[in-house]
Amino acid sequence: MRVGLIGLGAMGGPMAQHLAAAGLLSIVGNRSLQKVTDFVATHERIHGASGPQDFSNCDVVILNVSLDADVLQNVHALAEVLQPGSMVMDHSTVSVQTARDAAACLAGKGIAFVDAPVSGGVEGSRNGKLSVMVGAEADALERVMPLLNTYAARVTHMGEVGSGQATKAVNQIMVAGINEAVCEALALAEALQLDPAKLIPTLMSGAASNWFLDKRGVTMLNSQFTPGFKNAHMLKDLRIVQGMADSLGLNLPALRQAESDYAELAESRALPDADTSSLISLKRKNGDGGN
Amino acid sequence: MRVGLIGLGAMGGPMAQHLAAAGLLSIVGNRSLQKVTDFVATHERIHGASGPQDFSNCDVVILNVSLDADVLQNVHALAEVLQPGSMVMDHSTVSVQTARDAAACLAGKGIAFVDAPVSGGVEGSRNGKLSVMVGAEADALERVMPLLNTYAARVTHMGEVGSGQATKAVNQIMVAGINEAVCEALALAEALQLDPAKLIPTLMSGAASNWFLDKRGVTMLNSQFTPGFKNAHMLKDLRIVQGMADSLGLNLPALRQAESDYAELAESRALPDADTSSLISLKRKNGDGGN
Repeated sequence: MRVGLIGLGAMGGPMAQHLAAAGLLSIVGNRSLQKVTDFVATHERIHGASGPQDFSNCDVVILNVSLDADVLQNVHALAEVLQPGSMVMDHSTVSVQTARDAAACLAGKGIAFVDAPVSGGVEGSRNGKLSVMVGAEADALERVMPLLNTYAARVTHMGEVGSGQATKAVNQIMVAGINEAVCEALALAEALQLDPAKLIPTLMSGAASNWFLDKRGVTMLNSQFTPGFKNAHMLKDLRIVQGMADSLGLNLPALRQAESDYAELAESRALPDADTSSLISLKRKNGDGGN
Repeated sequence: MRVGLIGLGAMGGPMAQHLAAAGLLSIVGNRSLQKVTDFVATHERIHGASGPQDFSNCDVVILNVSLDADVLQNVHALAEVLQPGSMVMDHSTVSVQTARDAAACLAGKGIAFVDAPVSGGVEGSRNGKLSVMVGAEADALERVMPLLNTYAARVTHMGEVGSGQATKAVNQIMVAGINEAVCEALALAEALQLDPAKLIPTLMSGAASNWFLDKRGVTMLNSQFTPGFKNAHMLKDLRIVQGMADSLGLNLPALRQAESDYAELAESRALPDADTSSLISLKRKNGDGGN
């Protein structure tokens, strides 16, 4: 099986490393070609692509890009060059409709689409411990399982194309709301001058236990906001999710608060590339955040 | 060491069982005497108290009650009957000021006070896996450690009296905000008709992982709201915490949302005794919750 991967960013880069280590990767592409050059320089049997046409003889192409438009642009280009019977698997977070549009575009050429957003952060990608939420035909998922197994701790077949992104939307409401909870709680802890070295393990031992506190608690209290997961990406995701909630008639105020806060961080404060844990800066005294 | 325990509720009852099993409990009391009668009937060497005077020869009295006023009423009564050199340890969630007032009242009689709120829910109490946040003198904590070890997975000495409750306040902001996040996310999941049996393990494998989803996700999706932790108690705690945030000049909108939602549940909808996971009922379509 000849496998290509497009998108060597914070999530896609480590996935490519895992695939390469398993001998399962043939060719890589990226919008900025420097990352391709760097990757190929350290992986002698893997080719670098200068554009979508270079993936023409792949059996599977894996996407890890940022925006809905990027996914559709890549899918439309791949639809022109891939062979019938090949597949595209997308790990980006996009709308349910984008996943369906991508699948429809490819289906016209006899190419399968696997809607496969992930959770677990950059550490999940680095450690090969991602949770993958799949919307696809069962036989398509079966064919990509050897690839997913190189970087996933769990792969869940949620249903047809679109159900992967629907699940990711649920995941993102939860992640964003938990970030709000952790940042507000730690802002109070700072104001009360509680010792973080005692506080965080204590909180992690009870009903407040959560992934974000465990992975970001110490760094955020030190105002270290290296991504991780960027504010701009969270904002993009929350706007997708808010649109879904609106169309379903759901009133979700915690989601609205999070969307407002990440708009403040990514746009008003021009911190699009900081980690989402920088939300604590809005919650501190005189942070004057989003209200 | 002669140990008494007042408050045989959802948290205190299992603690009493653990102490009794370790042979460390002498006498129990409770506002409703039926619980005392029931406990004593199954523990032949343990006495039942009809009032605070029955604890007069205890070395340590452990409190597990609900309200600040209940703690202070018990502490004032115990101050009249306990011997100098004895101790009171309080596991209730109250304000920092109540903890300090309790300590000051007892100090006048030579009685030590251990400010020791807990987290981990009813299952933490039943399984002996609570996280205990202690504000006390180090020697006082050392004396009660054999007792705490029967029902705690972790005991953290946060500092002087009041710092246990300060830590619990931080814990409760986090717990309440996580509940908001989980309930809004699962309300979307229901509207999208995602399969809970696939959804919850998937979410628990990534960055959305948290205690509340793990312990309450399945039951809340089935609209089973048996406590657990009651809406009325959450509301009480959040009002204490909101007062702390206000006095420190912190603007915490996720906390305000949670306080508003639990006031809606416990008061407007008259569900004070339902589990906090009943919050999902406000988030469902036409839940018309709190906004």
